[in-house]
Amino acid sequence: MTRFALTVEFDGRPFMGWQRQSHGPSVQQALEDAVHAVTGERTAVHAAGRTDAGVHGLAMRAHVDIAKAIAPFRLMEAINARVRPAPVAVLDCVEVAPDWHARFSCIRRSYEYRIVNRRAPLTHEAGLAWQVPQPLDEAGMADAAARLVGRHDFTTFRSAHCQADSPVRTLDLLSVERVRDRLFIRAAARSFLHHQVRSMVGCLALVGMGRWSPDDVEVALHARDRAQLGLNAPSDGLFFVRADYPDEG
Amino acid sequence: MTRFALTVEFDGRPFMGWQRQSHGPSVQQALEDAVHAVTGERTAVHAAGRTDAGVHGLAMRAHVDIAKAIAPFRLMEAINARVRPAPVAVLDCVEVAPDWHARFSCIRRSYEYRIVNRRAPLTHEAGLAWQVPQPLDEAGMADAAARLVGRHDFTTFRSAHCQADSPVRTLDLLSVERVRDRLFIRAAARSFLHHQVRSMVGCLALVGMGRWSPDDVEVALHARDRAQLGLNAPSDGLFFVRADYPDEG
Repeated sequence: MTRFALTVEFDGRPFMGWQRQSHGPSVQQALEDAVHAVTGERTAVHAAGRTDAGVHGLAMRAHVDIAKAIAPFRLMEAINARVRPAPVAVLDCVEVAPDWHARFSCIRRSYEYRIVNRRAPLTHEAGLAWQVPQPLDEAGMADAAARLVGRHDFTTFRSAHCQADSPVRTLDLLSVERVRDRLFIRAAARSFLHHQVRSMVGCLALVGMGRWSPDDVEVALHARDRAQLGLNAPSDGLFFVRADYPDEG
Repeated sequence: MTRFALTVEFDGRPFMGWQRQSHGPSVQQALEDAVHAVTGERTAVHAAGRTDAGVHGLAMRAHVDIAKAIAPFRLMEAINARVRPAPVAVLDCVEVAPDWHARFSCIRRSYEYRIVNRRAPLTHEAGLAWQVPQPLDEAGMADAAARLVGRHDFTTFRSAHCQADSPVRTLDLLSVERVRDRLFIRAAARSFLHHQVRSMVGCLALVGMGRWSPDDVEVALHARDRAQLGLNAPSDGLFFVRADYPDEG
């Protein structure tokens, strides 16, 4: 049995999310079906993070155990051939130690949230960004974002369906960058609560619109109360961009 | 009667091209139908360039004459509301002089061609870039591109359906930039022949693959013979990015 680590890109639009679901297509199922078609083996594909419906992946990391003797490059090519027409692509595939685990070995997860700040609706990017028509003040958003960085109880920014044992997380990065009419909000942490990134982005957007002050975000954080959440940003703009592991550069 | 200049973004995937066609949807028709819904007027929308099926627009310029009294901002908003669900969006709308013509007043057209240089198939960007699996040598491509800049008879790079009077064009810019696994080929000229950008990109890609030398591109150019064309790149990766006019910055 060999364990392979995969780097996976996917377009979240047609999927119910990463995790296998009985009621609709998932990225996990698309990959597991492709692996089965290649190897004849029914085996689980484990990811660094379970993304929600509509959330995208630029470089999700995952692992899979395969009994059949196959080289990593051949496995990657064969999965890519079989996974079509699902919008999922394996960008890299390497053999790893049997105790390397895409989820449990991961020490840092990074997301990027994309906002298109304009009145006109999206064309190419429909479903791939959040279109916000009101002019957003990115300086205020960056100020508010800085209040959320660090170790906090993020109950306010946590979905009611979150299964984590603790609402305490250490947010290493939350930055806001504007490039013309695009805003890129980048977040990194060892792990996130369910809906945490989208909930933080929603509140930052309220600040950008002038409806909340940066202080209001801090008040909401300290309230530790989901009812204090201002806005949950749509899944469209959210991309899982990177997972880090101890033994990697 | 007031003439309005529009800046239009569109996703070319569902369209037969810019120009109204009897056999399928076009960007022009989508806009003209939206204008009709807004004003009750049947009027032509003229563009700076007629893009082919599958070619995209980031900032196509166009004009339309409207009898109804309407402010530019209101017209833009109303077209955007009525053009849905077609992936077309008006980004800007201003009143212009009655002799301003999106096509005939245009002094420079700029295109960008996007290549994703990797083995894995595209996910989010399917139809929005050309995926080339062979490693491309961008330095060789840039060398070849420089041979095409200037005033030449571009017959080799011209579609058999091209209706232009002369095959002579002055190419002001043809550059190749790599950003990780992306190549961006940028082209600018007062005007282009039909299929010229895609034909030039196709030959540059042959150089990138090592199948042609930069000299081969120059030989093909001087042959002034369509049969010498190496490869016509697919429409997927082509974006009309800018049109310039004399009285604008």
